[in-house]
Amino acid sequence: MDKHCIGIIGGLGPYAGLDLVRKIFDNTQAIHDQDHLRVMLHSFPSDIPVRPEFLLGKTKENPGFAIGKIMLGLVEAGADVLAMPCNTAHSPAILDVALQSIAHKNVSFVHIISSAVDEVCRISTPASRIGLLATVATLTTELYQKALLAAKRIPVVLDPEDCQKVQDAISNDTYGIKAHSNPVTATVKNILEAAAEKLAHKGIDVLLLGCTEIPLALTEKSYFGIPTIDATKTLARAVVKAIAPEKLKA
Amino acid sequence: MDKHCIGIIGGLGPYAGLDLVRKIFDNTQAIHDQDHLRVMLHSFPSDIPVRPEFLLGKTKENPGFAIGKIMLGLVEAGADVLAMPCNTAHSPAILDVALQSIAHKNVSFVHIISSAVDEVCRISTPASRIGLLATVATLTTELYQKALLAAKRIPVVLDPEDCQKVQDAISNDTYGIKAHSNPVTATVKNILEAAAEKLAHKGIDVLLLGCTEIPLALTEKSYFGIPTIDATKTLARAVVKAIAPEKLKA
Repeated sequence: MDKHCIGIIGGLGPYAGLDLVRKIFDNTQAIHDQDHLRVMLHSFPSDIPVRPEFLLGKTKENPGFAIGKIMLGLVEAGADVLAMPCNTAHSPAILDVALQSIAHKNVSFVHIISSAVDEVCRISTPASRIGLLATVATLTTELYQKALLAAKRIPVVLDPEDCQKVQDAISNDTYGIKAHSNPVTATVKNILEAAAEKLAHKGIDVLLLGCTEIPLALTEKSYFGIPTIDATKTLARAVVKAIAPEKLKA
Repeated sequence: MDKHCIGIIGGLGPYAGLDLVRKIFDNTQAIHDQDHLRVMLHSFPSDIPVRPEFLLGKTKENPGFAIGKIMLGLVEAGADVLAMPCNTAHSPAILDVALQSIAHKNVSFVHIISSAVDEVCRISTPASRIGLLATVATLTTELYQKALLAAKRIPVVLDPEDCQKVQDAISNDTYGIKAHSNPVTATVKNILEAAAEKLAHKGIDVLLLGCTEIPLALTEKSYFGIPTIDATKTLARAVVKAIAPEKLKA
């Protein structure tokens, strides 16, 4: 029996955690229950302070400490590969603090920015223009921009006003994805499709969904003729590949 | 901060585990991530021997021991309310063995047969006829039949040949739900809808989906004019009610 165990830091948000687990299952070759990989999801949203507020300097409470505690709990429960379906929380200011909690443990962490940029590189050539849909905090920390530039791709972002609209689609209390995840509202789909169209008009070769809430609303493989990468799906595939490459679906 | 924690015994099958967690989220009043309840899902399908084989006497390996170990792991990781989205595994021959592992722990177990029959009683009057869709093993152990009779409802089951077709819809290696969960195949939908129709023709007041794989295929609130109860959804609502009744959606 394969005793590897995947540990998912959930709750950021809860439906993004589920979405990653589902995509791990979806990308695993399995006919019987027993063919699936061992996965733990710990979804403790009320333990984790809001990420953007910290990254944008509105609070000093670093969510990395709570995330680190959840990571340690997963390791103590038996996980040897961890993943966290939240791009914003991969900002070094948060992630580096979290990872300190498991610094001396025998566990690997699969990084969503790396898995997404690897997939960008697989389907595009150097100097390709990559349109980014992400939270304001993720864009402000330039997580993806730096990683894309290092991979010789050109990040393309929306104008600030449109970035704020994308943020609203995620976190608006009335119609946003956090408040209505299943199903998402028509308002959210309209905002995000309009944002994708604006990026397409800027001239892009790939559209990258760099926030794990966005694929809950945008589920197609291409928008406006632009091949679209779902960062959550790249993370799911990277996790399966890390422990059972022979089970990764084509 | 509310420190209750729900522990889900997943992997029986993996998608049924996800479906329960999703229905817990769906039935929780929440606008922000932090409003959601704390949930752990431990999906270890390769640890758990096949349930029907044991219940039908084809093997002596009781899956209750593996399930008990997972229950204990959830409790040690902090869960104080457990639920298991698999009707078949609620057979006393399995469940009683599993529960021994947490006999002296401060934890409650929310029972899917009880939550489903409570919902049957809420929407029907005594002497109502309740159509049952379930695995052959669940029907053979008469789990639901006994519980429904105790609640003064009349269980109605398919003829053996049709029960076998429902079992096939769940576990056939080529087209069954275990092999193709997302999306399920058209073959499976056709088989299960035909089975529901046959039950409807037998004269029933309520259709009860008493296998946690079936709601992955049959997702409507009624079939052939018969109000339909999804046992997984009743379990999700019972779990939310157990620890945060004020958060249960109407």
